[in-house]
Amino acid sequence: MSLDRLIENIVKTQNPSAVGLDPRLEYVPEYIIRKKITKYGSTLKAAAKAILEFNKGIIDEIHDICPAVKPQAAYYEMYGPDGVKTLAKTIKYAQSKGMFVITDGKRNDIGATMEAYAAAHLGLTDVCGETCEAFGADALTVNGYLGTDGIAPLIAQCTKQDKGIFVLVKTSNKSSGELQDLILANGKTVYAAMGEMCEKWGELNVGKYGYSGVGAVVGATYPEQLEELRAAMPHTFFLIPGYGAQGGGAEGAAKGFDRNGLGAIVNSSRAVMCAYKKEEGCPETDYAKAARREVIRMKEDLLGCLQKIALE
Amino acid sequence: MSLDRLIENIVKTQNPSAVGLDPRLEYVPEYIIRKKITKYGSTLKAAAKAILEFNKGIIDEIHDICPAVKPQAAYYEMYGPDGVKTLAKTIKYAQSKGMFVITDGKRNDIGATMEAYAAAHLGLTDVCGETCEAFGADALTVNGYLGTDGIAPLIAQCTKQDKGIFVLVKTSNKSSGELQDLILANGKTVYAAMGEMCEKWGELNVGKYGYSGVGAVVGATYPEQLEELRAAMPHTFFLIPGYGAQGGGAEGAAKGFDRNGLGAIVNSSRAVMCAYKKEEGCPETDYAKAARREVIRMKEDLLGCLQKIALE
Repeated sequence: MSLDRLIENIVKTQNPSAVGLDPRLEYVPEYIIRKKITKYGSTLKAAAKAILEFNKGIIDEIHDICPAVKPQAAYYEMYGPDGVKTLAKTIKYAQSKGMFVITDGKRNDIGATMEAYAAAHLGLTDVCGETCEAFGADALTVNGYLGTDGIAPLIAQCTKQDKGIFVLVKTSNKSSGELQDLILANGKTVYAAMGEMCEKWGELNVGKYGYSGVGAVVGATYPEQLEELRAAMPHTFFLIPGYGAQGGGAEGAAKGFDRNGLGAIVNSSRAVMCAYKKEEGCPETDYAKAARREVIRMKEDLLGCLQKIALE
Repeated sequence: MSLDRLIENIVKTQNPSAVGLDPRLEYVPEYIIRKKITKYGSTLKAAAKAILEFNKGIIDEIHDICPAVKPQAAYYEMYGPDGVKTLAKTIKYAQSKGMFVITDGKRNDIGATMEAYAAAHLGLTDVCGETCEAFGADALTVNGYLGTDGIAPLIAQCTKQDKGIFVLVKTSNKSSGELQDLILANGKTVYAAMGEMCEKWGELNVGKYGYSGVGAVVGATYPEQLEELRAAMPHTFFLIPGYGAQGGGAEGAAKGFDRNGLGAIVNSSRAVMCAYKKEEGCPETDYAKAARREVIRMKEDLLGCLQKIALE
């Protein structure tokens, strides 16, 4: 179990960012939607097919300069079983191009049920002796509210498959503090307690580069907490949402990195997917090229705040 | 937004229990699996088809005596997109028989993403002007770790559709206390703080019977906390897991009910689905009839600890 493959991809591309594939149908260019609706009518299937084509176009354009994609399960589930099939195909396609895939599902449950989620999203499913892959991402975001019973089954599955997880610690949204910032009797915050649990869950699974397979989600919108948690969680790799549309900047996000420019990956979704809508005069058929330009812009923005990205 | 339809089903059937449809393939009788594998090979599709037949058989036998089913998303996702299609079909089938369906997905996210989950599991999805239903359950379990930003989008969707949610408060598992029992600086526990948030989220959505559309998950394995939370959360309906296989008894679960025998529904999964394996001499073709007998046994067990089930 580790996030070593992700770290290697980051070093190779010299890019500490992930592209969130959260494709609301209104992000998809008209010409793609029209094609699918002509064929399948205004159905969930048409939407799912349009999104798959959209995703593949973006992956084709960015896979050589971006280490990872993070599809958000919700945007596939809203298109029903057909949408979920598009999620599975998107994961496979991105992996076939060498990208590390983080399914953002924020799954959580206990015991045998969490084993089922682990098999679904990271592992393998046995069907009467045949081993099948359901979704097969490289990492999964999870919610640790249920404690170790919800994490141990993932660790077991990830160890077999060299995969990883990211546990929500301090999320990027405005109301994240309602629960996460509450002060415990020992003076610590709830999010710090969750952070300590992450370090503990990961301690037996530290990879080659000093980070364990148990990562944490910490929002770019809270730079102080990022800095605090970076110091408190030396073996925990961070997935940092909230850059761009949500208001987090590169300087704040940089607080989540170590002195080698490692230890974190910053996610951007809408700004990349909808780059073609913001670029003046960009035809919608160039949506993927516009996405590539935004990936490069973001990478340079982040690199401007880091000294280097190197394994030592 | 409310859980009124669930409450009415409970009163009608005089049964405060839900059957968890968490169908691991090993719970499904051999004769069903063999039939599907002969047709589709040892594939995820075969597994998904077998599970659908199994679920329909149980629903056919229990729908007149049981108010609700609670399919657990993990057990469908582990069979990939075909498994997820079985989830959608199971939900529709149970609803067509009059049952209230709680999708146990423990979903959580923020803003637009949570809106997508709400559309996926409780609401409707727009595809270029056509309104489509993705999964369309009657209620969804959710995790409130992200605060109001993760709950408000659900409330908006549930209000349009008269549906409900259940927020994890004190879960049934052994390690639930690692985070949930931590003591805050104000002397309260983390789970009590989450409970207060549930009451607040529900206050504008109290239904005809005094309970809001924002329910809470509280485990049968913690009777003291059930009693404490029942008193502290007068407008919050409880979904109580942990009865049976996990060690919770009827007497403990009864602490979650009000004096009219309302205010809670107790879930049982494995004991019902696998009843045929425990009954001596029960042929596997009678699995659904055995499930019915277990539903009746559980109902009587619970009723033995409640004075009555009545709307006043």
